[in-house]
Amino acid sequence: MLWDLNYSKFLNNVISQYQNWSCFHQSVQKRKKIIWKGEELVTKKTTKEEFLNLDLVLASAGGSISKKWLSTIMEQNALLIDNSSAFRLDNNVPLIVPEVNASDVFNHDGVIANPNCTTILLTLVLAPLNKLSTIQRVVVSTYQSVSGAGQLAMEELKLLTKQYLQGKPQKSEVLPHSLAFNLFLHNSPMLANNYCEEEMKMVNETRKILNITNLKLSATCVRVPVLRAHSESINIEFAGAVEPKDALEQLKKSPGVEIIEDYKNNRFPMPNDVMGRDNVAVGRLRTDISHSHGLELWLCGDQIRKGAALNAVQIAELLIPKK
Amino acid sequence: MLWDLNYSKFLNNVISQYQNWSCFHQSVQKRKKIIWKGEELVTKKTTKEEFLNLDLVLASAGGSISKKWLSTIMEQNALLIDNSSAFRLDNNVPLIVPEVNASDVFNHDGVIANPNCTTILLTLVLAPLNKLSTIQRVVVSTYQSVSGAGQLAMEELKLLTKQYLQGKPQKSEVLPHSLAFNLFLHNSPMLANNYCEEEMKMVNETRKILNITNLKLSATCVRVPVLRAHSESINIEFAGAVEPKDALEQLKKSPGVEIIEDYKNNRFPMPNDVMGRDNVAVGRLRTDISHSHGLELWLCGDQIRKGAALNAVQIAELLIPKK
Repeated sequence: MLWDLNYSKFLNNVISQYQNWSCFHQSVQKRKKIIWKGEELVTKKTTKEEFLNLDLVLASAGGSISKKWLSTIMEQNALLIDNSSAFRLDNNVPLIVPEVNASDVFNHDGVIANPNCTTILLTLVLAPLNKLSTIQRVVVSTYQSVSGAGQLAMEELKLLTKQYLQGKPQKSEVLPHSLAFNLFLHNSPMLANNYCEEEMKMVNETRKILNITNLKLSATCVRVPVLRAHSESINIEFAGAVEPKDALEQLKKSPGVEIIEDYKNNRFPMPNDVMGRDNVAVGRLRTDISHSHGLELWLCGDQIRKGAALNAVQIAELLIPKK
Repeated sequence: MLWDLNYSKFLNNVISQYQNWSCFHQSVQKRKKIIWKGEELVTKKTTKEEFLNLDLVLASAGGSISKKWLSTIMEQNALLIDNSSAFRLDNNVPLIVPEVNASDVFNHDGVIANPNCTTILLTLVLAPLNKLSTIQRVVVSTYQSVSGAGQLAMEELKLLTKQYLQGKPQKSEVLPHSLAFNLFLHNSPMLANNYCEEEMKMVNETRKILNITNLKLSATCVRVPVLRAHSESINIEFAGAVEPKDALEQLKKSPGVEIIEDYKNNRFPMPNDVMGRDNVAVGRLRTDISHSHGLELWLCGDQIRKGAALNAVQIAELLIPKK
């Protein structure tokens, strides 16, 4: 992906383009043309020549592809902002959520990593709340939409749901099970501690972004039959008591966060509220009745925008010299 | 609903009939006939005469209706097994999950209460695990299917999903928001502590059933676009360390519970596994990496069967004199 640091008009368009990334990637494999903003774009096979004279490479084609082309990118003295998990935990690779740890961005050796989607959404609320009282433990359960598994998985959910409604049998090919009116625990590879990769990304990446190396955090990641936007049920234990109203005030003034909280009308964030939007919606902050220093909250965020594309572009924006 | 304690053949059929309960109730309102097991059944308006000479009344038409007819049922010396929340927390009303606290069933004054669906599923795993080490705190997030909101809500989810797939606008009338590829926090009335009724049912009823009056428990209840069967992500803190393998062995021998746990193939319970089945499926027991005495697990259960109808019939079965 060609990119010029002075070409700010293009920057504004990158977000929208990036949203079609999984579509892009599949198109590359199939050598398709795609229409974007009324313009026909032809995807090209990645070759060494494509990297000539680049300043910046935004990569979102998986860890193995990022690793494969890293030396080529380095030879060009280009900067890689990588959306895969390949380099996220490397000590010399900043892992950046601009609202949280922007100051870490310059400590790079040519690679800056973009965190996992669920992690980005989570750290956007944990970081400001940690200023009220030190966070000691987090228990989170996710409600992850199928867009996190790519465009083909979205198409499969729509197809299998249609087949279900027509009384036809459903057979999943992209996902391990049908998601039509069904759900299942996240199917990323299982690790030795019986957490899956997705869950341990949340643990390890959150620790790195918040710079709390011993943060206690456990995540249960679940894929739900939602097309777009992730939700998270978050239980936080602090060193001291945190009043929900103080937490609310803190989050209200936090960038990238908006509040949807109307107890009277029982109205809190939903995936439909945030689809295609940049901000993470947070609500239903309340004192946890099971813990003296506990707070519970609920969030929804578009994991393709803030959870991936927008965050990558925001990282790039941090690098533009201030005038 | 007519019922004779010696009429055991009928008992076996009650479960299936009970599954159509919300359909039944709606039929009553519309004075419809329904087909059940090839037989045409005519729903009748509830009158005082209908309760004459009954031994047992199974009620599942909401708290206000149960309260309205309680004195009539009492006059007949009939026993009310009530599925509403009207009497669940009354001191002289046993709240029964037969696998957990069957011995409490005879301590009644004419009313036995059937717990809330999510509570029944939860207590089926908490009770056996509490024998390994005393449970000190539970944090649970639910993934509740639309069948818990009744037959009309199920029809609405199917209709709005179909409209979504056809590119038509969707407007919810039964539920407060469209569930088509969307989800939202449980919409039961909000209480003063900012937990909704559904969540506090889990707290208070679990305490009563387990007979742990000070059990620390927090629940976040979420309605998801699943047609049938609830799921729960459960985090348990014990007084001492509990090994997952010991917890697994304990649950394997617990009635009403079955294990679906295959770490190698990443296969754990899903709603599709338990639809129309009696057992609650439990899996992915693991040590909680964020707590020294923590255990995490995942369950799915058909909340119309074990979460409501089956449990009510099992309560009735406890009352049949052993031969």
